[in-house]
Amino acid sequence: MSAHVPDAPQSSHLAGRVDPNDPVFALHRRGKLAVASTIPLRSREDLSLAYTPGVARVSEAIAADPSLTAEYTWVPNTVAVVTDGTAVLGLGDIGPHAAMPVMEGKAVLFKQFANVDAVPICLDTKDPDEIVETAARLAPSFGGINLEDISAPRCFDIERRLDAAVSIPVFHDDQHGTAIVVTAALRNAAKLINRKLNDLRVVISGAGAAGVAVTRMLLAAGVGDVVVCDSRGVVHTGRAGLNSVKVELAADTNRDGRTGGIAEALADADVLIGVSGGQIAEAALAGMNPGGIIFALANPHPEVHPDVARQHAAVVATGRSDFPNQINNVLAFPGVFRGALDARAERITEEMKLAAAQAIADCVVDDLRPDQIVPSPLDPRVAPAVAGAVAAASADSALGS
Amino acid sequence: MSAHVPDAPQSSHLAGRVDPNDPVFALHRRGKLAVASTIPLRSREDLSLAYTPGVARVSEAIAADPSLTAEYTWVPNTVAVVTDGTAVLGLGDIGPHAAMPVMEGKAVLFKQFANVDAVPICLDTKDPDEIVETAARLAPSFGGINLEDISAPRCFDIERRLDAAVSIPVFHDDQHGTAIVVTAALRNAAKLINRKLNDLRVVISGAGAAGVAVTRMLLAAGVGDVVVCDSRGVVHTGRAGLNSVKVELAADTNRDGRTGGIAEALADADVLIGVSGGQIAEAALAGMNPGGIIFALANPHPEVHPDVARQHAAVVATGRSDFPNQINNVLAFPGVFRGALDARAERITEEMKLAAAQAIADCVVDDLRPDQIVPSPLDPRVAPAVAGAVAAASADSALGS
Repeated sequence: MSAHVPDAPQSSHLAGRVDPNDPVFALHRRGKLAVASTIPLRSREDLSLAYTPGVARVSEAIAADPSLTAEYTWVPNTVAVVTDGTAVLGLGDIGPHAAMPVMEGKAVLFKQFANVDAVPICLDTKDPDEIVETAARLAPSFGGINLEDISAPRCFDIERRLDAAVSIPVFHDDQHGTAIVVTAALRNAAKLINRKLNDLRVVISGAGAAGVAVTRMLLAAGVGDVVVCDSRGVVHTGRAGLNSVKVELAADTNRDGRTGGIAEALADADVLIGVSGGQIAEAALAGMNPGGIIFALANPHPEVHPDVARQHAAVVATGRSDFPNQINNVLAFPGVFRGALDARAERITEEMKLAAAQAIADCVVDDLRPDQIVPSPLDPRVAPAVAGAVAAASADSALGS
Repeated sequence: MSAHVPDAPQSSHLAGRVDPNDPVFALHRRGKLAVASTIPLRSREDLSLAYTPGVARVSEAIAADPSLTAEYTWVPNTVAVVTDGTAVLGLGDIGPHAAMPVMEGKAVLFKQFANVDAVPICLDTKDPDEIVETAARLAPSFGGINLEDISAPRCFDIERRLDAAVSIPVFHDDQHGTAIVVTAALRNAAKLINRKLNDLRVVISGAGAAGVAVTRMLLAAGVGDVVVCDSRGVVHTGRAGLNSVKVELAADTNRDGRTGGIAEALADADVLIGVSGGQIAEAALAGMNPGGIIFALANPHPEVHPDVARQHAAVVATGRSDFPNQINNVLAFPGVFRGALDARAERITEEMKLAAAQAIADCVVDDLRPDQIVPSPLDPRVAPAVAGAVAAASADSALGS
């Protein structure tokens, strides 16, 4: 398990081959999902209620009052997990067929942690216009749309346009799921080192889906300053050739107008968050303020190995399950959608995401340690807490609007 | 339960209202479907196999060999039930939201009778181009596509174009499901009255989705002559204003070149199949050959009441569960898709449909009676028999092509 932070593709001599000794293939035989009927069907009477002629009366009622969809269909509990297969884990653009096992896994997690019925939809198109229009046409069938593993910068525009086109929640997990859990972890890590968010200088290494969303959310959460680095170095207003997303990032970040590379960005920084701009040399860490925070979230190869990171920071987190403080999206997305569906929210607002982050952080606040700044991904308290906080924030947003 | 033969909308003073005393509303609360996980998820180890990092190895294998989708995903057992909500039961164009309870019911039947995982997809578009392109883009996610409750004549072109666009089975149940069960019933009814199919004169009342498909299939099954009537009377080559589908029908039917209305069509006819051109006056039946066959499939109001029909024919069937010989699509579509999926067929051929009809007919051939020409819709032998016949016919088609 990991945050959805892409890394270089894993490779081995067996990559792309079926290894009969690998338990992952045995587990995946015939897939990981099924559709289940929730009603009895034993007699002609059952048939005549569940299907024709009885079902016509339910359809007539919904035709007269579409809001009854929420009472008499499975729609309000469903989420479409939509991908084009262009940015699947660290594997890149492997296409819709190869993306399916990941989307099925996502649906399994939705069910397990939040009783959300999620349906994987792997699209046979990479055209942003077609992705938006296709997902919008599916909207009557679902209570929400989780965009997944769509490459940056296409994902930003696709999400924005789809969100405007439909009146059900749209959430690109690679962006906002990661941002929520990072924000939760940073809140608790800052508390451990007795610092306020507005007093922190944060460096984000990586300006893909996760990097952009983490930056936006940390600014919304009140972090004092953020400097973003991509593969070409610091994002700043004087840099030529920035795409529109990075032009906006440059305007809203880097208060001091830094230029140069990751080492220049990290000088006097309190926090490094790798998401993932690639490996970072240890020498670059030397300029960080002592006693700070490093999240190295690339998986399976963190930007900085946690053993090295611990020599330069008081609190360290990764995306890996075999080190402490695993930053894992599963802490966020099941509860976020559960809360949004329960509240019948039409969208997932910034306030709802911030409430989710706070709820995740609060799950371990009474037992905070440098090796426990976030809950375990299997902690059953998390999704209900997030759902409650998100639903409440949705109600507040509705009142305030 | 009924064949998918539209009828005038049912109406009552409560139509479109939720009747709290109607058990159909209690049954439908929260819908009729759920997504289930088929794998355990209790430990971090489980998580790392079902999702990252383990799942990446399955995705890599499928990226290298897309045919592994059939082994390691749920796709080969899934069917999308796709509608635009334009011809839902007898209710007409009630839209995608109101169509959902019917599509959920269809998915329940797929699961119950053939263990097919069916996902309802109600589209927010009625544009045929958009329906075709949307469904085609969903194809990597599904093993087959069941088109449902899409109005005629749009349905013919939509099915034809979608079938050409994708390499998974496409099946418009309102057409072919009805045609298969009617063909099965007619085979057995003809046997009861000691007639051969090629010796029968059949009149079809109704030239919508079901009427056109029944006509086509009966001709493929070897029926001697078919005359089609729509609301304007007999379809013949001399009639002005025929759409392209009816131009083709006129060319392939009505050997004697009849004109006029239903009474002229029925003179000396052996078989009347109503699917549904509206109510038929008893006087029109008087010209039929004695000892024939009447299928009056509109639901809940058959074109001819069965008590009346029995005075003019030796064998009578309807779409209703409260009379003998219910012509019910559920006898066909679960087994048809089960067989096509098992055979990994790329399309559903005419031979596969004819094999399905024969298999349904054979289920009651040893116990044939005028009030038992088709199996009960709950007969558990039917779907496996149909599946086996369809899979075998698919293999034959592949060999012969």
